[in-house]
Amino acid sequence: MTDDEKFLHDDELTLEQAVGFTYDNALDVIACGLDPEKTFIFSDTDHIGEVYRLGLKVAKRVTFSTVKAVFGFQESTNIGMIWYPALQAMTCFLQSVREGENIPCLIPAAIDQDNYWRMTRDIAEKMGYYKPAQIHAKFLPGLAQGGKMSSSQPDSAIFTTDPPRRAAQKVMRAFTGGRDTVEEQRRLGGRPEVCNVYAYYFFLFEEDDGELVERERLCRSGGIACGECKRELADRVKVFLTGFQERRERARDVLGDYMMK
Amino acid sequence: MTDDEKFLHDDELTLEQAVGFTYDNALDVIACGLDPEKTFIFSDTDHIGEVYRLGLKVAKRVTFSTVKAVFGFQESTNIGMIWYPALQAMTCFLQSVREGENIPCLIPAAIDQDNYWRMTRDIAEKMGYYKPAQIHAKFLPGLAQGGKMSSSQPDSAIFTTDPPRRAAQKVMRAFTGGRDTVEEQRRLGGRPEVCNVYAYYFFLFEEDDGELVERERLCRSGGIACGECKRELADRVKVFLTGFQERRERARDVLGDYMMK
Repeated sequence: MTDDEKFLHDDELTLEQAVGFTYDNALDVIACGLDPEKTFIFSDTDHIGEVYRLGLKVAKRVTFSTVKAVFGFQESTNIGMIWYPALQAMTCFLQSVREGENIPCLIPAAIDQDNYWRMTRDIAEKMGYYKPAQIHAKFLPGLAQGGKMSSSQPDSAIFTTDPPRRAAQKVMRAFTGGRDTVEEQRRLGGRPEVCNVYAYYFFLFEEDDGELVERERLCRSGGIACGECKRELADRVKVFLTGFQERRERARDVLGDYMMK
Repeated sequence: MTDDEKFLHDDELTLEQAVGFTYDNALDVIACGLDPEKTFIFSDTDHIGEVYRLGLKVAKRVTFSTVKAVFGFQESTNIGMIWYPALQAMTCFLQSVREGENIPCLIPAAIDQDNYWRMTRDIAEKMGYYKPAQIHAKFLPGLAQGGKMSSSQPDSAIFTTDPPRRAAQKVMRAFTGGRDTVEEQRRLGGRPEVCNVYAYYFFLFEEDDGELVERERLCRSGGIACGECKRELADRVKVFLTGFQERRERARDVLGDYMMK
């Protein structure tokens, strides 16, 4: 977990807070049900002793010219941020070092991380490792119009630590693809293609593809009102969060099993 | 000990070799007679876990623009070298962090390290620490003409690990301020101001100031030949190295007492 990067980018954040986020985020990862036998989580800051050597070996092969081009760094960029891509890239080779043989690396990450792995692919073979590959993950849209999550608008996102009732309220206030009046909605149908509520069904809360198609059809034909559709989602969100938060609390007891040794 | 810097600057050096130098150099430091109660030695690489947080806090306050101006870094500089000044600067505040109170820092270092401490002085007070101060140490001259030590000319320097007889040979071959012939030497006298042998007496091998003045007088008046002067120095170097190397070997047994906990 990149607590060093968070700290270096955010003037308001102390390092201690950033490292705290690592352990908070680790609880979310564990609550998702990962197998501790196949998982290790590490903090760039707390586990730097395990990863610094590999980071140095990467850093020796990356110039300022490269990180300037790849990340848009400038003269005013601090030297910690300039160093950090070496640590991010190092993760692609870490398992090879730990196991003492060349292990291919597949990275499930949001698409905004792509430039790190492109930079890493450029140096991987020179260092004797396979080029890493990424699964490009889409961003989950937020709940406000436009679909962008914003930390300055807490209602625009559901946090895993939101009280379930609070999260349900957020869903009920979400931006949808609905029409201005009930009459228009019946006549013209909704627009799932711009609807955040539909997106939440699509990405997370409707596992049955047949049901998803049926929901879209109902929406487009005006056969379901936005209020009803949001209420159903809010119920599912409440059920999910209640279970997730129980698993997240239990994760505190096994956190040590997941952290890198 | 800055094994990370050595590694990042030298294309031929592996990180493992660089870290090895740290422990070799530590033996020299210990053989000089430092008190283990008042000394701790650390490797940037092996002890990074103890110092990375403080390094990050420094790095956040130093821009590329600054290290470019101070160290002459360029677009082609690797990002490890760009990060490294944060680790070097961090040492000035490390004791304050370890003791939990603001401790002034005095650095005995060769004058080529001055730019690190100037950079550090610029950020010290913003971070809540005293500005560090340096004792500027002169470089000890080498034995070849011009007085520069060079790793490509092993005869230009005495290494603490040189066999004493080998070191004595180097002294006997040293560049002096002597004249071309014995006759000229007697008539014109030697030139201690350009003589490496005299410099070794001055810096290291003549503790008695009266004796030093007498040696200079004898030299300038032609009262002592270079061969004799070198033989005396060679004897002192042999005696010193014999004792030093015994202490250096014994240092292996107490190395752990000196390393940072």
